[in-house]
Amino acid sequence: MYFASDNAGPAHPRVIEALAAANDGYAMPYGVDASMERVRDRLREIFEAPEASVHLVATGTAANALALACMTRPWETVFCTRMAHIEEDECGAPEFYTGGAKLTLVDAPDGMMTPDTLAAAVDPLMGRAVHNVQPGPVSLTTVTERGSVYPLDRIAAVADAARARGLKVHLDGARFANACAALGCTPAELSWRAGIDALSFGGTKNGLLGVEAVIFFDPAVAREFELRRKRGGHLFSKHRYLSAQMEAYLADDLWLTMARSANAACARLVAGLSRLDHVTLLHPADANIVFCRFPRALHRRAHEAGAAFYSLDPIEGEGDARARLVCDWSASDENTDRFLSLLA
Amino acid sequence: MYFASDNAGPAHPRVIEALAAANDGYAMPYGVDASMERVRDRLREIFEAPEASVHLVATGTAANALALACMTRPWETVFCTRMAHIEEDECGAPEFYTGGAKLTLVDAPDGMMTPDTLAAAVDPLMGRAVHNVQPGPVSLTTVTERGSVYPLDRIAAVADAARARGLKVHLDGARFANACAALGCTPAELSWRAGIDALSFGGTKNGLLGVEAVIFFDPAVAREFELRRKRGGHLFSKHRYLSAQMEAYLADDLWLTMARSANAACARLVAGLSRLDHVTLLHPADANIVFCRFPRALHRRAHEAGAAFYSLDPIEGEGDARARLVCDWSASDENTDRFLSLLA
Amino acid sequence: MYFASDNAGPAHPRVIEALAAANDGYAMPYGVDASMERVRDRLREIFEAPEASVHLVATGTAANALALACMTRPWETVFCTRMAHIEEDECGAPEFYTGGAKLTLVDAPDGMMTPDTLAAAVDPLMGRAVHNVQPGPVSLTTVTERGSVYPLDRIAAVADAARARGLKVHLDGARFANACAALGCTPAELSWRAGIDALSFGGTKNGLLGVEAVIFFDPAVAREFELRRKRGGHLFSKHRYLSAQMEAYLADDLWLTMARSANAACARLVAGLSRLDHVTLLHPADANIVFCRFPRALHRRAHEAGAAFYSLDPIEGEGDARARLVCDWSASDENTDRFLSLLA
Amino acid sequence: MYFASDNAGPAHPRVIEALAAANDGYAMPYGVDASMERVRDRLREIFEAPEASVHLVATGTAANALALACMTRPWETVFCTRMAHIEEDECGAPEFYTGGAKLTLVDAPDGMMTPDTLAAAVDPLMGRAVHNVQPGPVSLTTVTERGSVYPLDRIAAVADAARARGLKVHLDGARFANACAALGCTPAELSWRAGIDALSFGGTKNGLLGVEAVIFFDPAVAREFELRRKRGGHLFSKHRYLSAQMEAYLADDLWLTMARSANAACARLVAGLSRLDHVTLLHPADANIVFCRFPRALHRRAHEAGAAFYSLDPIEGEGDARARLVCDWSASDENTDRFLSLLA
Repeated sequence: MYFASDNAGPAHPRVIEALAAANDGYAMPYGVDASMERVRDRLREIFEAPEASVHLVATGTAANALALACMTRPWETVFCTRMAHIEEDECGAPEFYTGGAKLTLVDAPDGMMTPDTLAAAVDPLMGRAVHNVQPGPVSLTTVTERGSVYPLDRIAAVADAARARGLKVHLDGARFANACAALGCTPAELSWRAGIDALSFGGTKNGLLGVEAVIFFDPAVAREFELRRKRGGHLFSKHRYLSAQMEAYLADDLWLTMARSANAACARLVAGLSRLDHVTLLHPADANIVFCRFPRALHRRAHEAGAAFYSLDPIEGEGDARARLVCDWSASDENTDRFLSLLA
Repeated sequence: MYFASDNAGPAHPRVIEALAAANDGYAMPYGVDASMERVRDRLREIFEAPEASVHLVATGTAANALALACMTRPWETVFCTRMAHIEEDECGAPEFYTGGAKLTLVDAPDGMMTPDTLAAAVDPLMGRAVHNVQPGPVSLTTVTERGSVYPLDRIAAVADAARARGLKVHLDGARFANACAALGCTPAELSWRAGIDALSFGGTKNGLLGVEAVIFFDPAVAREFELRRKRGGHLFSKHRYLSAQMEAYLADDLWLTMARSANAACARLVAGLSRLDHVTLLHPADANIVFCRFPRALHRRAHEAGAAFYSLDPIEGEGDARARLVCDWSASDENTDRFLSLLA
Repeated sequence: MYFASDNAGPAHPRVIEALAAANDGYAMPYGVDASMERVRDRLREIFEAPEASVHLVATGTAANALALACMTRPWETVFCTRMAHIEEDECGAPEFYTGGAKLTLVDAPDGMMTPDTLAAAVDPLMGRAVHNVQPGPVSLTTVTERGSVYPLDRIAAVADAARARGLKVHLDGARFANACAALGCTPAELSWRAGIDALSFGGTKNGLLGVEAVIFFDPAVAREFELRRKRGGHLFSKHRYLSAQMEAYLADDLWLTMARSANAACARLVAGLSRLDHVTLLHPADANIVFCRFPRALHRRAHEAGAAFYSLDPIEGEGDARARLVCDWSASDENTDRFLSLLA
Repeated sequence: MYFASDNAGPAHPRVIEALAAANDGYAMPYGVDASMERVRDRLREIFEAPEASVHLVATGTAANALALACMTRPWETVFCTRMAHIEEDECGAPEFYTGGAKLTLVDAPDGMMTPDTLAAAVDPLMGRAVHNVQPGPVSLTTVTERGSVYPLDRIAAVADAARARGLKVHLDGARFANACAALGCTPAELSWRAGIDALSFGGTKNGLLGVEAVIFFDPAVAREFELRRKRGGHLFSKHRYLSAQMEAYLADDLWLTMARSANAACARLVAGLSRLDHVTLLHPADANIVFCRFPRALHRRAHEAGAAFYSLDPIEGEGDARARLVCDWSASDENTDRFLSLLA
């Protein structure tokens, strides 16, 4: 019964097999191996972006911070929501990699910006003198940290609002696969067709050991990214082991298969929770994350029974406490049902 | 016939097996898994340093830059040799991670500092006013980028000279295992007993996929290191796959076995080269790297035959050109002999 | 009729005289001149802090950013209000000088924090893992950017709340003199006795050409400050011209005389405005800044008549628009009355 | 008898008068005052560069570091000589302002680069992979820290070598006026006509209180410079006091008059020294700095008699010690002769 995070689940066996297969003799280091060529070609194909600049790094924080550093001057500010990973969970990595840029928080009641909340944050900074930090890129996240998934037209509307102000749009796609699966759309629809300039295409939370692709639709950024990646210590000498993971991930749409599996597990969980009167669902659970509220006594019972999940309030005493539950690709129906039975 | 770099060889099969074994169900992320506990304990044991602060990162550049950032204020300068990896091969990562510190070059004719060359670089900066950058740590490398290995008493002498000036000593140990094997000494002798304050204990060049341990003998640095690691994007969520590699590396002294194998391959290569009249060895090849010089025609013949190595001069025309040859743990005698036969 | 800013008024004639007097022959550069000794001694005396570390810089932004850089690690966050100069008006200087720290905004309805609003901002960051930026210093401003002046007990209460959480307290005292004059308190009462660890003691907005003193009550910071100042390009070679300004400022309490004059001008302005039915005062005008609201037609009339002040809303059309009016030490009664007559 | 530095002499009386004259009523802050307009126009005229971007800062370190920050990406390296002010005397300000760029040292036996020594430093970095820092701008200094002045054709040759490699050229012109006076050339000849892209036009060492103009011949840099200046805390609110100094400096060629005076004082000093058998001149003293060597006993006698200058070796005991002597605009013949008599 593991619902703490999708980064605590195992890698898919095919990924381990791919690593073993890649472990054959010598390979050119630093990403000039043949498998990286195949990964680049395949990602360009999947994203319908034959010119895209494609790079691999091993962590989501590196993917975000390096991408944003290529899009932001030190005296600019990045627009994101208060619960964005770049604001809340990266210990200032974007500030570090950009050379001291700011993050400006955009209202997002359901975890998602609107064109209006973005405008409310950006417009006071437009056309300002040198006393003020200057508007930089907008950074969206989908699946959001609230479990919601931006509808395509909402991304497009926000991206339009950004573009109308001369701002680029970045997408933190740590759970891009889950969002794509939830929307039933293509990667192109969820990225450049919706106005995204750069994104991370996450694998770590979705069945890899640790690989994220960073994709820029403007290929001119490639050289700067690669210099920043090396300078940040994120260029792997034995890069073949990153490429191999990503290659397995893309083969036969394993990435989508795993994301669908995680989302289905979450749907089963949500369905079960919604049948329980004393459980209140707190946000729309569009993909593989659900927030809910239930009695503290049940929190305690579940934890004691070995269920791993985050209780977001203290769980001593009476009354409800909130919980965050995340499903990964490997979550089984049995596990979900066992957890549900604990809450019944 | 692969002598380009030890980072292009395969991982040891036991490491792949360890990854597969680690890929079992859920594990706590971010380095709080049980395998990291075992790795920490084992490294403290091997280094005879029960209080040491131990951390894993995936690249040598990250290991160096993060360690140095914890030892250097932005207005200080790091003392290293001209051919040090931190000076030559990290695209300014130390400058980036330290917040803009300098690197001051110390003379090292055989790739290694002496107490005198260090003093010559440091002393003009001692006691200087605020106009000057201030002396920071000394960073040594062994195996050096010239293939030499610091004798223990030379490290101690240099470290004494540093300490006498109030400076800490860092060791870039990307090839620590090869140095240890070459010297036949213990890890403690090659580190804190010789006056080293912090080091990287490299695995990537010696049979892992990508893991380096960073060890501080002063445990007070641990928290700062971990904040800098996260901020740098180098904290792995699925950290168990780093721990598992390192655990396999330490088990049954696999790290030493592999290093000895690489050094032995190099020794066989050196022995063969020294029998060839038209080949001149350029530096003492103390571990697994050899520099030599031989006729350009033989460079061309070897490359055409598929040998992978760095020719350090243009290889068109007549006369000798220099070569760098590196052996990894997996180098076979057959390969070495085949290469030697090409040069005969 | 100049109410745009107190940084647009002239320097006091005695300051110019002091510059001329200082311009006599040779003087040791870089702040080791005799006048800096006198300034240091006098500031320590005025602040009743015989050990304080005292430094001069030429701009308020430098004073704030350098002081905060000595109090903040790169992975920490500074707590300030949304309208703080460091947040709004320094183009990210604190982020730059700290090496990429964040600023976390504390609620302050009247321009001033309370212990509770501070706690609400700090407490969620206390004891957090490495994923989060860590709590750094609290930065207060008095006179605030809303024209209010922190009562002494309110500073003390906020500083206590900070200290209880292990946080240092910085005071942006660009208008320290005006606050001191408004409160009728001593500099010690408005600083270390209220729990302030470091402050800028501003002169630029109060009759100097451009000098701010930075004072740390912990003298151990001195060396770091001086290194950061030099590295930031803020150490003046001909430092005597900074010292001379500050010396004249301190002599015969000129700083207080000028601040009282500015505050008195503002009080006269406020009294006049409050007699006008169509003018609404917006915040308590505790020192030399007043915010008010009056009909757009009067904005236009005043601007056309040559009054210099900031209209904070567009002034075309009907209805009220807000204005900010700032008085400097040189503001004459005639000017104030002439301005008031335009609004009558 | 003051020969320690030209930054220890007084400002010219006309500069003090200009400050007093500028101290009249209100002036728009932050460099939008009328006097800055006049300064900009006049500098463009003097430099025959009607489009040049012109900015004022108060220190030479700020001028250099801000200019270089606009010309250098964080992963690049600046080429300069070992004795350059940016390398030796700015406590890492260029590293700080550029976000961690390196400085690569170019050989310069007489204090000046040649196209060949520049090429020897640059060429090994041309076309390198991401492992290496990338070539950035070349930074020259004239008058050099050895007292020499680059002949115009030598600047042009070095700048050509830079441009041929795609590199920009920066000139640290802290003593630009002295160099210009020494060469008898125009400012345009000593800057853009010789291939300089950006320079500081120093005033602080030549009779101002503290002002340097930074000039970019490419006006596209203006906005970035102004953002960096503000972010660095170097934008003066009461900017009129910088403008006024510079305006007085430019009026009636006061800058040239003062530089000629300093150079003439130095020439008189050199002539006197060269008549003394026991004094050896060490470098060509092309402008206002002279290096020489004379008996330690005379060092002691001169210091005891109150002469201020830098002895570059310990002065106890026997034999010669080196001295650096710098003349400023206010140096009188009497002073020089009195000093010479001490050495006789």
